[in-house]
Amino acid sequence: MMRSGTKRTSDNHATTSPKKVKVGTAAEGYDEKKHFEATYETLAKELLEDMKTYRLPANGLAWVEKMLNYTIPGGKMNRGLTVVSSLKSLKKRDLTEEELLHAEVLGWCVELLQAFFLISDDIMDSSVTRRGAPCWYRAEGVGMIAINDAFIVEATIYRLIKKYFRGHAFYADLLDLMHEVTYQTELGQLMDLITAPEDNVDLTRFSIEKYKYIVEFKTAYYSFYLPVALAMMLHGIPADSDSYKQALRVLLPLGEYFQAQDDYLDCFGSPEVIGKIGTDIEDNKCSWLVNQALPLCNAEQRKKLDENYGQRKPENVAVVKQVYAELDLEGLYRNYEEESHAKVMKLIEEIDEKVLPRDMFVTFVKRVYKRNK
Amino acid sequence: MMRSGTKRTSDNHATTSPKKVKVGTAAEGYDEKKHFEATYETLAKELLEDMKTYRLPANGLAWVEKMLNYTIPGGKMNRGLTVVSSLKSLKKRDLTEEELLHAEVLGWCVELLQAFFLISDDIMDSSVTRRGAPCWYRAEGVGMIAINDAFIVEATIYRLIKKYFRGHAFYADLLDLMHEVTYQTELGQLMDLITAPEDNVDLTRFSIEKYKYIVEFKTAYYSFYLPVALAMMLHGIPADSDSYKQALRVLLPLGEYFQAQDDYLDCFGSPEVIGKIGTDIEDNKCSWLVNQALPLCNAEQRKKLDENYGQRKPENVAVVKQVYAELDLEGLYRNYEEESHAKVMKLIEEIDEKVLPRDMFVTFVKRVYKRNK
Repeated sequence: MMRSGTKRTSDNHATTSPKKVKVGTAAEGYDEKKHFEATYETLAKELLEDMKTYRLPANGLAWVEKMLNYTIPGGKMNRGLTVVSSLKSLKKRDLTEEELLHAEVLGWCVELLQAFFLISDDIMDSSVTRRGAPCWYRAEGVGMIAINDAFIVEATIYRLIKKYFRGHAFYADLLDLMHEVTYQTELGQLMDLITAPEDNVDLTRFSIEKYKYIVEFKTAYYSFYLPVALAMMLHGIPADSDSYKQALRVLLPLGEYFQAQDDYLDCFGSPEVIGKIGTDIEDNKCSWLVNQALPLCNAEQRKKLDENYGQRKPENVAVVKQVYAELDLEGLYRNYEEESHAKVMKLIEEIDEKVLPRDMFVTFVKRVYKRNK
Repeated sequence: MMRSGTKRTSDNHATTSPKKVKVGTAAEGYDEKKHFEATYETLAKELLEDMKTYRLPANGLAWVEKMLNYTIPGGKMNRGLTVVSSLKSLKKRDLTEEELLHAEVLGWCVELLQAFFLISDDIMDSSVTRRGAPCWYRAEGVGMIAINDAFIVEATIYRLIKKYFRGHAFYADLLDLMHEVTYQTELGQLMDLITAPEDNVDLTRFSIEKYKYIVEFKTAYYSFYLPVALAMMLHGIPADSDSYKQALRVLLPLGEYFQAQDDYLDCFGSPEVIGKIGTDIEDNKCSWLVNQALPLCNAEQRKKLDENYGQRKPENVAVVKQVYAELDLEGLYRNYEEESHAKVMKLIEEIDEKVLPRDMFVTFVKRVYKRNK
């Protein structure tokens, strides 16, 4: 039983290999990603030590340790790494050790937020695998305990923020930002869930407006805005500064483009390159492609979509893909990509350089546009 | 498929009818509970208006409205009302309108926290009904969407706290307290879930130590400590004051007693009085009673418990109850009740009256002890 809907772009967010950056006083060529991963090990240990202060019995500690290691590391970590790279852009220099640690802690908070969503999304979507292994709720002996595990993962975000930032002037602003983005994402997930309910293919529920709402709320805030906003807060930009709105003006369209691209690649990307066989058509996903096709198709094509979308057989999928070809969705996507890129670049030009370095956004755009996997 | 474990004492926390109190300038005999309920209507409207600022589409708003009304009101609301009565005790006078509103908002935050736990507990426990209606996840068309609904309920706590307390000096302390108690409850739930896994009756997993941990973490912090601590914070007691520890010293044993009593009544209370037929034995619950029986029983009695506990047939339940009778668990409970009452009263005497009025605790104790339903 597969739930339809817009998939959460789990960890295929920007796929170029991590740029080598100088970190603090470390030697040229220091690997940002490895450093970030090493910090995870430290934070996981600290969280487990922290649980001991709650007298959590040994079998509880063992459970949490296994759960964290199963659900948190192992992704591409681009959201988390973006906190680090954005802070570097803002500082216009290498980070001090303390700045780097703080950016990494908040980077892992974004990754924890993502894990909280993915653990529970997988249950709600009846998903089978994640990152090549069974979803956590399908791991031996877990089942619905995964719901409470997702809660614990969410709660650890606030343990980390308290530990590292309780004395800082922006502590309450940090908490507000995390709460806000969590809430936005949950509202997006709600709309996704009720727009494409389980086992009920009804293309009249889809529309490009709903698609845009879901993408903005379910994906763009936490994946695109949050990492940059956290870096801005670390840099000391006051929470009521107009700069956050300026960042949003660029990052939300960028997030929307990213999701459309993800949907495009699911159907038209090479499986050898994207590393998976796309199943959005079979899964009745509220994808960018089907939302483009619906207003364009004639009665006959519409009938074909109604009868074949959301069906598991290859012959059904082939009919949908044939309609997509007739409508030249590939060409449509190429145009959309050019237009979207031009729009985002224009928005970046409107950024006030006095507060926000344009290169912070340009770097981000370069990572996202014209990827083929 | 029923999960065993310690049940969450949903809304049978203190059952005497609400005391008539003067509220602000209202006339004698004003009903505290009705006022609290009316405030829910206001807050629910505000939350839905707030969601419109997130451009939530109409079908999303309709969903959330239905979900909130299904899952939040309708309980006894004793946790929420305790914030109001505790603040009155602390002020030693009737509350002003603003004080009352603030206490009620935080009271509803406790009720929202409870709803967040209950919506998800019911899924994890495969429960069927709650407050005489199908559990929310079993309501028509809901299913696993209930997981995201639970998240939204949790998130509304922080919307309310932000709206009413963002400018207050104790804002960050309030957030810390809510996060802390949420985390404690989740750790308690984890221990409950892994101590008594689904479909697996194994009494060797139970122990009075585990029982105490689960009761303290899963129930006592959020049901007993949190409402009082919120009132203390509203009263302006600094978060680092020793008074919070003093309150904990009374309220945790009180919570432990409350849960033992709940477990006792499940087996020995009159169904006509407690309003339900207890099923802890059938459900393989890690109850106070079975944890008392295990260290006392002889080999023959142990064999009977092993073979009959957690079974659905009345004849199995009868065998367990016979062992309980042989071990005189009723008498044991009466002794425990006396000892526990004496212990809690002694702890109250040790309270420093300069900061915390003893009557705040005494009122609470009177509500809890010797209830028969």
